[in-house]
Amino acid sequence: MRAVPLPAIKMSQQESSSRPIGIFDSGVGGLTVLKSIRETCPDEKLLYLGDTARLPYGTKSAKSVARYALQAAAHLQKRDIKLLVIACNTASAVALVDLQKELAPLPVIGVVQPGALAAVSARPAGRHLVLATEATVALGAYSRAIKALDAKASVSELACELLVALAEEGWTAGSVAESIVHKYLDGALDGSRHSRINSLILGCTHFPLLRPAIRLVVGNDISIVDSASTTATVVDAWLEQNGMRNRSGNHALSLLATDGARRFARVGGTFLGTSLTEDDVEIVDL
Amino acid sequence: MRAVPLPAIKMSQQESSSRPIGIFDSGVGGLTVLKSIRETCPDEKLLYLGDTARLPYGTKSAKSVARYALQAAAHLQKRDIKLLVIACNTASAVALVDLQKELAPLPVIGVVQPGALAAVSARPAGRHLVLATEATVALGAYSRAIKALDAKASVSELACELLVALAEEGWTAGSVAESIVHKYLDGALDGSRHSRINSLILGCTHFPLLRPAIRLVVGNDISIVDSASTTATVVDAWLEQNGMRNRSGNHALSLLATDGARRFARVGGTFLGTSLTEDDVEIVDL
Repeated sequence: MRAVPLPAIKMSQQESSSRPIGIFDSGVGGLTVLKSIRETCPDEKLLYLGDTARLPYGTKSAKSVARYALQAAAHLQKRDIKLLVIACNTASAVALVDLQKELAPLPVIGVVQPGALAAVSARPAGRHLVLATEATVALGAYSRAIKALDAKASVSELACELLVALAEEGWTAGSVAESIVHKYLDGALDGSRHSRINSLILGCTHFPLLRPAIRLVVGNDISIVDSASTTATVVDAWLEQNGMRNRSGNHALSLLATDGARRFARVGGTFLGTSLTEDDVEIVDL
Repeated sequence: MRAVPLPAIKMSQQESSSRPIGIFDSGVGGLTVLKSIRETCPDEKLLYLGDTARLPYGTKSAKSVARYALQAAAHLQKRDIKLLVIACNTASAVALVDLQKELAPLPVIGVVQPGALAAVSARPAGRHLVLATEATVALGAYSRAIKALDAKASVSELACELLVALAEEGWTAGSVAESIVHKYLDGALDGSRHSRINSLILGCTHFPLLRPAIRLVVGNDISIVDSASTTATVVDAWLEQNGMRNRSGNHALSLLATDGARRFARVGGTFLGTSLTEDDVEIVDL
């Protein structure tokens, strides 16, 4: 599959910069990233696509994730976006380089590098633990990104699939959430004072919803970072550096999904921190 | 999409009956049904297809589930099966009638009717609670099937998505499993003695793995049934009545999946109660 080329007609800077930012994720989790981008760049038009027909990506093979991500990205490119943000950690880990090649000259930003940057900024020479999906952990993308930024850092990664379902079920606080977080983390929190981790990276867009429960379990000495706010900062910097801020005054939010508008609205509302109805979601076929 | 027609050449009864039984599920959960069929009908060739590229079905729309189920069933039909078992409760609830029409004259058996039969046999005039996926609950297929068999029965249904992820993670016993089961069931187990449920139906192929934890939580007065063994009995009766038992002496088991042979082998082994390697799994593209 080849990406659709950008229109050959040269647009004026104003027309060009008023196009939306495309954000894509396997489902609703990426709405945590959209929320951060909207807070940081409130004047932008945002076009979000959740591939709900094929979620989750986190337990699928790299080959399938790459194929799905390319299809989703090509759809957003056809809708004339000025920048693509891959809000899904798994898709960022698997397919960022492929997407950058296929969609060029459209710029593509993933969430792994911003997440790594947030972690090394919070804890230089830190002992990091990345919580992520099976597919993300299998690729080791966070470990490479962190070590590239901070040679003194140590990094381990842990697949926590159940946290995805927990966030989707909305059980983000209380004894069940805490007992699951305990079961995943108790091993990593044990050990001698020397080797104990001092930084947790929420390497899946679902996990920021569980941050309060995770904080309760790990205590206050461990820093906890996620990709969302740093990704928003990277997006903001790109807009500024390229003179691509939207000055049209129109900052609409459009939501697309590949399946199940009703479920998207119900679960997505939790992630976005607002109320959605199925009429807010357009279903598209990739 | 039309199903591929069966070959026009009339086969002898012996050739015909030596063909495999096809079993299809959204992923590995249906292996609990396969296991029961293998125990009840040890002489049969079994061909299992798990649509791991698009799992789970339980949170997808009925339209998508129906489309996926038809594609998977058509693939098995091309491989010359003599009978199709839809091991997935969600696909059975959504697509049984469509599949029977599309694949005719190939006989198709779902798991919802056998599950309902098991429940009303265990508890005549029972007060049943069906634990299932969101999609299965939304369709109310179990309620209809139970009431059709037993007009005095009362039925309620409860979506328990997190139990799917719990079974896949292999956390089938212990405090986390019990706390999640408690959170789902405490409301249903409360109430006056009169209205309290006395029958639990495990309406998702993942849930039989959690049966010991569920038994601990609900106590010994409530009957617990699943579809697997009754479905195997229905399959056995069909073979007998139609003279279709395999007498070739070859009773191979073949496993197909649409994605991720390694994960299928790891998680599937838990469901099948045996050890699998990725070489045991053939990847197919639907």
